[in-house]
Amino acid sequence: MATAAIIGTGGYVGQETLDRVLAHPELELAALGSDTLAGQAAACLDPRLNGSAPAFVTNAEARASGADVLFLCLPTAEAAVFEPPAGAVVVDLSGAHRLTDPTLAVAWYDTAPGAWSYGLPELYPPSGRLIANPGCYATAALLALGPLAGVTESAVIDAKSGVSGAGKTLSASSHAGVVLENLSPYSVGAHRHAPEIAQQLGYAVCFVPHLLPVRRGLLATCYVTPTAELRPLLEDAYADSDVVRVLPPGVTPELARVQHTDGAEIGLFEDRATERAIVICALDNLGKGAAGQAVQNANLALELDETAGLRLAGVLV
Amino acid sequence: MATAAIIGTGGYVGQETLDRVLAHPELELAALGSDTLAGQAAACLDPRLNGSAPAFVTNAEARASGADVLFLCLPTAEAAVFEPPAGAVVVDLSGAHRLTDPTLAVAWYDTAPGAWSYGLPELYPPSGRLIANPGCYATAALLALGPLAGVTESAVIDAKSGVSGAGKTLSASSHAGVVLENLSPYSVGAHRHAPEIAQQLGYAVCFVPHLLPVRRGLLATCYVTPTAELRPLLEDAYADSDVVRVLPPGVTPELARVQHTDGAEIGLFEDRATERAIVICALDNLGKGAAGQAVQNANLALELDETAGLRLAGVLV
Amino acid sequence: MATAAIIGTGGYVGQETLDRVLAHPELELAALGSDTLAGQAAACLDPRLNGSAPAFVTNAEARASGADVLFLCLPTAEAAVFEPPAGAVVVDLSGAHRLTDPTLAVAWYDTAPGAWSYGLPELYPPSGRLIANPGCYATAALLALGPLAGVTESAVIDAKSGVSGAGKTLSASSHAGVVLENLSPYSVGAHRHAPEIAQQLGYAVCFVPHLLPVRRGLLATCYVTPTAELRPLLEDAYADSDVVRVLPPGVTPELARVQHTDGAEIGLFEDRATERAIVICALDNLGKGAAGQAVQNANLALELDETAGLRLAGVLV
Amino acid sequence: MATAAIIGTGGYVGQETLDRVLAHPELELAALGSDTLAGQAAACLDPRLNGSAPAFVTNAEARASGADVLFLCLPTAEAAVFEPPAGAVVVDLSGAHRLTDPTLAVAWYDTAPGAWSYGLPELYPPSGRLIANPGCYATAALLALGPLAGVTESAVIDAKSGVSGAGKTLSASSHAGVVLENLSPYSVGAHRHAPEIAQQLGYAVCFVPHLLPVRRGLLATCYVTPTAELRPLLEDAYADSDVVRVLPPGVTPELARVQHTDGAEIGLFEDRATERAIVICALDNLGKGAAGQAVQNANLALELDETAGLRLAGVLV
Repeated sequence: MATAAIIGTGGYVGQETLDRVLAHPELELAALGSDTLAGQAAACLDPRLNGSAPAFVTNAEARASGADVLFLCLPTAEAAVFEPPAGAVVVDLSGAHRLTDPTLAVAWYDTAPGAWSYGLPELYPPSGRLIANPGCYATAALLALGPLAGVTESAVIDAKSGVSGAGKTLSASSHAGVVLENLSPYSVGAHRHAPEIAQQLGYAVCFVPHLLPVRRGLLATCYVTPTAELRPLLEDAYADSDVVRVLPPGVTPELARVQHTDGAEIGLFEDRATERAIVICALDNLGKGAAGQAVQNANLALELDETAGLRLAGVLV
Repeated sequence: MATAAIIGTGGYVGQETLDRVLAHPELELAALGSDTLAGQAAACLDPRLNGSAPAFVTNAEARASGADVLFLCLPTAEAAVFEPPAGAVVVDLSGAHRLTDPTLAVAWYDTAPGAWSYGLPELYPPSGRLIANPGCYATAALLALGPLAGVTESAVIDAKSGVSGAGKTLSASSHAGVVLENLSPYSVGAHRHAPEIAQQLGYAVCFVPHLLPVRRGLLATCYVTPTAELRPLLEDAYADSDVVRVLPPGVTPELARVQHTDGAEIGLFEDRATERAIVICALDNLGKGAAGQAVQNANLALELDETAGLRLAGVLV
Repeated sequence: MATAAIIGTGGYVGQETLDRVLAHPELELAALGSDTLAGQAAACLDPRLNGSAPAFVTNAEARASGADVLFLCLPTAEAAVFEPPAGAVVVDLSGAHRLTDPTLAVAWYDTAPGAWSYGLPELYPPSGRLIANPGCYATAALLALGPLAGVTESAVIDAKSGVSGAGKTLSASSHAGVVLENLSPYSVGAHRHAPEIAQQLGYAVCFVPHLLPVRRGLLATCYVTPTAELRPLLEDAYADSDVVRVLPPGVTPELARVQHTDGAEIGLFEDRATERAIVICALDNLGKGAAGQAVQNANLALELDETAGLRLAGVLV
Repeated sequence: MATAAIIGTGGYVGQETLDRVLAHPELELAALGSDTLAGQAAACLDPRLNGSAPAFVTNAEARASGADVLFLCLPTAEAAVFEPPAGAVVVDLSGAHRLTDPTLAVAWYDTAPGAWSYGLPELYPPSGRLIANPGCYATAALLALGPLAGVTESAVIDAKSGVSGAGKTLSASSHAGVVLENLSPYSVGAHRHAPEIAQQLGYAVCFVPHLLPVRRGLLATCYVTPTAELRPLLEDAYADSDVVRVLPPGVTPELARVQHTDGAEIGLFEDRATERAIVICALDNLGKGAAGQAVQNANLALELDETAGLRLAGVLV
C-alpha cells in the first residue's frame, strides 16, 4: 500500500479527495491536514467520517508525514508557496502551477510556474513527481477540444457549472438567495481558465462561464469550425478510456449522468445552419474536474492502476 | 376600453396572457376560451382567479365573442388553421406564422406563412391586424443581435431556458426527476428558432438551447466578431425603451432580475483573448418571451400605450 | 399622498418594502435610508431602480425626513434602540418589539417590549402609531391557528421556508452548496417565533422550522386536536378578506401560488387515522410574511385602503 | 456467488437495485427483466451500463432465470399477482404485501397480504423467503419511532420527499414546472404509508407527506410525547448498526448527508415549550428507502453479509 496525505482538507476539493483516498484499494491515508481543524476528530468535518479516518493534524504535520503522495487542496496563493517534500509525489489541485508561461502565471495567478507538469491523463499525461491538476472548466473544454486541435483553430466555449465549483467560501454570489432560480454569467471573456485551455490547445479561445442552480456538475458547450470529420478523432482519443465516454450520435451529455462520478461524457453534433460543429462535454466539477482527476494523476505517478479509487460505476438515477 | 379574448387559456402562455389582460388598464376581458375547461369557472384553473374572470367558454365561442383583440395561445398546429375573424387584431403566440419563407415554414412547422406580420416592437414593429409573436429564444437573441446586424455577419447563440418554456405538456424531459440538479442541451444545432433568428438578422446562426433547472427565465449568450464598436448601437436601439435595459459596462444580466417581468436586460462584453464580443440577453420566457410581448404587440395594433398592462416594475428580490 | 421612509433598505425585507411603496397609489417615497449605501443612486441596489427612486441617504437622515410612516427594516438589535420620531407611524419589521412579556423579550431578543402594538390585520389589528410586524413563521401559524384558538389547546407546527427568510447575510447555512438539493431542520424546538405564536394563541406550541431549497415562500403544516368543527371558524375569519383565501375541501396550499404575492392560502384537512385536524398555511415570507403585511399595517394606521399597494393579483405561473 | 434477477427494471427503483446488484461482491446478475425494454441492450436504459450488464429480457424470462433472489420492482398491482418461483428469495419493493391485515390490504392496495414477511432489518428482520420491503416514508418513520414504541403512544409524522419517490411516471404533479420553487403537501392525512407505520408501531399515527423540489432524499420530522428518556432507546437500537447513525445532541439530520447512500441519520431533540420530543430521520428514498434496504433484506435471506453491496461510505459533498 502506498500512503497519502491531504493538505487542506476542509473545503469541497479536500473532502472529495479524502473520500476517494478512503475508497482507494491501494492507498492508505497517512495524514489528514487542516490548519483550522487540527486536533479535532475527522467526524467534525462530517459525521459520516466517524471511525473511518484519523484526527486532523496541521498542514505542516501532514506535509511531514512521509506520505508517498500529497494532495494539495489549498487556495492558490498558499499552494504557490508550498514546498514539496523531497521524494513525494505532489498533486496540486489549485491553479498555482497550471500556467507554464511565466508572464501568464504572474498575470492570472501571481505565481511562478516552476517545475510542475500539467496532468490531464487522457490527453496530457503528467511526468515527474510534481503535478498540476487541471481546472474543472479546462478539463471539460480540453476533453472536448484536445483531440481536435489539429483540425480546428478557434473555439467558443460556453460553460455552466454548479456552485460547488466555487468552493465553500462565503460570498455574495454563492448565497443561495442569489443562486436559486437564477443563472449568472461571470468573468465574461476574462476567466483564468481561458489561458489554461489555450496553453494546451495552442490557440486562443473565447470562454464564458455561467453559475448554475445545481450543487455539482459542469457542462461545456464548445463551438468550432472544423476542417475534417471530428467523430473519428474523438472516438480514437477515448477508445481505451474507462473514464471518458463518447456518446453515440444524437445522444446529448447531461449533468445527471456524471454527477458524483469521476467520468466524463462527450457528445458531437453538426450545426444544421452553419459550418460549425458543437462538442459538448459533461463532468462532475469535483470528480473528473478535481478530486477524481487528482487521484488518477497520482495513480499514474505512483504506477498504480490508473483508475483505482475512482468512481466509475453506479449512481444511476 | 378595448375588449380581449384568449383562445387556449389552459397552458402557461394562456395563463400569463390572462394575467396581463386582467391587469391591463385599457383592456377588458371579453371571453376566456379553452376547449378542455369550457363550462367551468375560471377558478378551476387557479384558485386566485375566483371572482376576477368569467367562466371558460369554448375556443369557438371565444373566437366569436367580437373582441377587439384575440390572443391565440394554441399549439402551433391548431394556430395554423385558425381563421381570424374579420376586423379583429389577432396575436398568435405559437410558431405557426413566424417564418415568412414558405419553404422554411413548411420544413420547420408544416405551416404556410400567410399574411402575418412579425412583431418584435423594439426592432421589428408589427403592421396590420395579424401579428406573429416571436419565439422566446428568438426574442432574446434578436434583442441582443438585431441592433448589430450591420456590423456582424455570423453568430453563435448559446441559450438556456427554464422549464416553463416547454409548456405544461407532460414529457420525459419535463419530469422533475430529470430536470432537477441537471442541465440538458437539446435540439443541438437543429432548433426551429434558429431559422427565425436568421430570417430577422439576415444571416445564419448557430444556436444551441439548454434546459435549466429553474421554473422561468431565459438567458442567451451570443458570440460575434464585430467590425465596429457595439455599445453605441445597443444603447441607441433601446434609448427610449421602457422594456429593454442595456446594462452599464461590467454588469451581467441575470435571470433573477427579469423573472416575473416583461422587461429584458442586455449586457455587452469584450473577450480578452479573441476578437469576439459577447452580448448577453436575459428575459422571462413567459414575459417578454411570450405574453408580455403579445400584449405589447396588441397595444401597438390597437393604438394604446405600448407598455400598458406590462409588468415593468417591482419583483425586486 | 402620505409620505414614507425606509430605514435599512439594503436587505431583502427593505427591498421588498421599497418595491411595494413604489407601487403604492397613496404613498410617496420621502427617503431611502441605508447607512452602507448612503450617497449612492438607488440603482446601485438594483439596476431596475434606475430613475424610479431617490438616492440613498443615511438612516438618520431617513428618520428625520418627516415622513408620515417609517418602515424599520433593521436587524433586531438596531431596531431595539431606534427612537421613533414624534408623530410618525413606525412599522418595525424586526423581532425587537414582538414579544410583550418583558421576560420573554429579554430571553429571546434581549430587548424591552415598550409601547408597541402587535399588528396582524386579519386577527390582531394594530393600534396606535408603533407597530410590531409579525414574524414570517408566526404569521403563517397564526393565520392557520388563530381563528381556532377557542377549540384547540395545543399544536404542533412543522414549518418550511425558502432561503430569503434568513436574509442576505452570508453564513455557512445560506451557502448555495448547502441549500441546493437539501432540506435542513434548524432551531429544532427552540426557535424564537414559538413564543411569539404562543403569545397570540394563549397556549404553548411545538414549532420546528426547516430550510427549503427555494428562494421564497413559506408553508406551515399545523396539527391540532379540535373540539369542534374547524371549517366554519376559518371561513368566517377570512370571509371578508382580500388577503387570505380559505381553499375548498381537498385543495392543498402550495408555495407556487403565493410566491411574489402578499396573499395567503389556508387548507383544512381531517386525519383519517387519528382525531387530529391538519391546517396548512402558505404565504410568501417576504410578502404577507414581511413587507406586504408591513404595508397593510401602515395602511391601517394611516387610515388608507387596507390593501392599497399590496400584490394581490397576478403572477399566475 | 449467488445469482439475482430484477423484475421491472425500467423505473427508478429498478435502476437503483440494478446499480447495487452490479456493485455487490457476492451477487451476480442473472437476468435483467423489463417488458418494455426486452430485447434491447442494457445501455438503452443508461449509456453508463454499456458493457456492464446483459441485455433486457421479459419479466417472465427473468422470473424463470433460476436466480437465487428476485427483486420485484413492479407497480403494486402487478406485484400483487406475481407468482414467486419455488425456492427463490423474492423481495417485493412495491406496496403489495406490506399490510398484513386483510381488510387494510384491500382498502389501501386492493391486495391480499399472503405469506410475506415485512423486512426492516434493524427493527423487524425478515423471515422466510418472501419479503415485503417497507415503503420509503414508513422506513424513515419507523427508524425514528420504532425503538420508542414502548414509551410513546401517538405521533405526528411530517415528512418531506424528493421527486424520485413518486417514480418515473409522468403526471401533472411530477412536471418540473410544478415542482421547482414549490413545496406541495399531498394525500394529507390519507396516505397509505400511515397504516403501514401504524401496523409496526402498534398505534395510529397522523402522517402528512410533502413533495420537495429535490431529486432524492426524504426527511421525516416526528413529534411524540414521551414517558421516558428517549436517547438511550435510540442509541441502543442502532449501537451495532453500520446503516443507521444516531447523531450527537444538537446535530440535525439533513438530506445532503444521506443522498446517494443506503444509510440513515436520526436526530433527537426536546421541545423547549411543550412536553414533546422531536425525532428526525433522514434517508435516501431510493437507498435505505427502497433499493438499499431491498439488498439488505436479500443479504439476510441469503445469509450473506448484511451490508454487502450497500453504499455506506463516500459521497461527502
